[in-house]
Amino acid sequence: MFDASAPTRGFDTAEFSARTEKAQTQMAKSGLAGLLLMSEPEVRYFTGFQTLFWQSPTRPWFVFVPASGKPIAVIPEIGAELMRRSWLDDIRTWSAPAPEDDGISLLTDLLSPFARSGAQIGVMKGHETNLRMPLGDWERLLSGLPGLNIADVTGLVQGLRMVKSPNEIEKLGHICAIGSAAFAAVPEVISAGMPLEEVFRTFRQTAIGLGADDAPYVVGAADQGGYADVISPPSRRPLQSGDVLMLDTGCTWDGYFCDFDRNWAIGHTSDDAKRAYDVLWRATQAGIEAAKPGNTCRDLFLAMSKVISEMDGSGGDIGRLGHGLGMQLTEQPSHAAFDQTELKENMVLTIEPSLSYGDGLMMVHEENIVVRNGEATLLTSRAPPDISVIA
Amino acid sequence: MFDASAPTRGFDTAEFSARTEKAQTQMAKSGLAGLLLMSEPEVRYFTGFQTLFWQSPTRPWFVFVPASGKPIAVIPEIGAELMRRSWLDDIRTWSAPAPEDDGISLLTDLLSPFARSGAQIGVMKGHETNLRMPLGDWERLLSGLPGLNIADVTGLVQGLRMVKSPNEIEKLGHICAIGSAAFAAVPEVISAGMPLEEVFRTFRQTAIGLGADDAPYVVGAADQGGYADVISPPSRRPLQSGDVLMLDTGCTWDGYFCDFDRNWAIGHTSDDAKRAYDVLWRATQAGIEAAKPGNTCRDLFLAMSKVISEMDGSGGDIGRLGHGLGMQLTEQPSHAAFDQTELKENMVLTIEPSLSYGDGLMMVHEENIVVRNGEATLLTSRAPPDISVIA
Repeated sequence: MFDASAPTRGFDTAEFSARTEKAQTQMAKSGLAGLLLMSEPEVRYFTGFQTLFWQSPTRPWFVFVPASGKPIAVIPEIGAELMRRSWLDDIRTWSAPAPEDDGISLLTDLLSPFARSGAQIGVMKGHETNLRMPLGDWERLLSGLPGLNIADVTGLVQGLRMVKSPNEIEKLGHICAIGSAAFAAVPEVISAGMPLEEVFRTFRQTAIGLGADDAPYVVGAADQGGYADVISPPSRRPLQSGDVLMLDTGCTWDGYFCDFDRNWAIGHTSDDAKRAYDVLWRATQAGIEAAKPGNTCRDLFLAMSKVISEMDGSGGDIGRLGHGLGMQLTEQPSHAAFDQTELKENMVLTIEPSLSYGDGLMMVHEENIVVRNGEATLLTSRAPPDISVIA
Repeated sequence: MFDASAPTRGFDTAEFSARTEKAQTQMAKSGLAGLLLMSEPEVRYFTGFQTLFWQSPTRPWFVFVPASGKPIAVIPEIGAELMRRSWLDDIRTWSAPAPEDDGISLLTDLLSPFARSGAQIGVMKGHETNLRMPLGDWERLLSGLPGLNIADVTGLVQGLRMVKSPNEIEKLGHICAIGSAAFAAVPEVISAGMPLEEVFRTFRQTAIGLGADDAPYVVGAADQGGYADVISPPSRRPLQSGDVLMLDTGCTWDGYFCDFDRNWAIGHTSDDAKRAYDVLWRATQAGIEAAKPGNTCRDLFLAMSKVISEMDGSGGDIGRLGHGLGMQLTEQPSHAAFDQTELKENMVLTIEPSLSYGDGLMMVHEENIVVRNGEATLLTSRAPPDISVIA
């Protein structure tokens, strides 16, 4: 298929230099001599290095953002050809895997001057991060760099990544449109009697056929009058009349995700399910209306919770009612009581209220928005106000 | 589609108790009071907990394997329903995300008795691992458990996972057969003039249509007389006569991967490319023949290198000529000069020789095997000895 509506893939150099300069402005304020980054979205954010090869856990990859100038890559030789196409000039490689020295000597050489001068280097150590290198190598690296001062820069990097550029928003809008088209096709390609496993397979093929690069995240559930769980793999149970079917997808295009869901009734459904659907549709609406610059994620959470409490006063155990969206299926911030992050122009967010009802049943709604011109603009085609019925 | 040849999904409890008992036997030898595990394949290996939800980086997940008895799960509440279907009895949950305490109190409660007694707890800190929790939380956890002794158990856990059970081999054989069928279909669904991006899309849809749950890893390249890079995303350049096309895929079925590739000539190709193909086909054959119990990964590397050196004496920079295969696209061991791992019955491995030729070109071949009854048995349908031509 050729999709004339697709944006251009990749970004030009101006995008990466702007990201780097913004980081360096923040680094200067915090007295940081550099950032050592090693997870896929951060490496890609500063370099444009995009490859599925991250699915192999074997090799670590590093990017160092200095106080001024371009980032420096310290990567396995197998990635050199691709990294050389990026805007970086300084690319240092080793033949990996090398269990005795998987990039540690190269990092030590790079960081030694900072250790000698007692400079502070930022590493992401906070919420929603992990250390994408062996813990033993990290300990070894630090022990070889006495004097190096490590600061947690989770907030700095996540703060930059939360606010999207126009090019990023264009990509996110494109994959949300593909996801919307895939959900719109569901009543044509799915019917009662189809095992849930085949529903997932058909949905994945439909999304890819409509232009998604991939549909790595397809989850959902179906059962009489509702479902009890939203993260399980599909069973071979055939869809039955009276089921509520939910599909939730993270499809990707050029390395950016949509993340939203839809609910359908197979033939018919219970009054409880219809009521849950109505409450969540209005909770979503309340979330969308609250998504204005200056409001906080907590405000969004409270706006949605107020509507949810018409049917479910428990507050739920899922922990939040939406989150940031971009290069990752779920990103900062969180629409939760604990998150006082102030919404800003060009944040891309999910609005994801859920509730419990009946005997252990639950329902989730989800849309994707961008905060723009002082209000939320939908990137997804809004779910209908009443649950759609699949024949 | 309904595939009558598909094995049963999941595993019975006997599989998990056998895995746990084997771990506990090793732990007793090493004086370990428990293993603290947190990455997807390890959590799944001991519990059967399988979900795509790991794609969300937000929440950490933990499993503790005690010196005796069943593993204990310490997980976000959103996973409780699914984990309750596992063989575990002790499932401790919290409402995540909770940036101030994302499971740390629960882990501290669990591990405090071991800290007080000065016991040793195993954590994976070595090659091919990473810390799938925030580094700051790890540091906080340790500082609250003075006396706790941490040992690196990378070798212990990887040693168990390297040797597959009959049920695991059945799943791996099934996905390798699906991958083989997808590659066999390539000349029917792909033709000259098709942009590489569409080649990837078509291949992914074909593999899913043939029964793969997903095709998360599809990489490759195509250019005149060969390709220069094997990890890049596809361009929109149309396939041209004289191209060598390579596709490398990691398809999944029930959480197990195949990982192999195929090369084709579009219309015709250069003598150099034909020669590279022949050398690599024979290098693969040498690797297959060397894959006997008692030989080491180094022996496989040397057997393949000897053939590769007919055309390329550099030894290559990719770092290895194959690896383990299972729940991850790439697993231990590595067919490399540094890896003295002795091959054992029921190891599943890739045989993956590569070489450089011409002006910066490279070629890679790959097959998947199981070591069984004293020799290698192919799980993939062997590539033809001469490069196939796509019209």
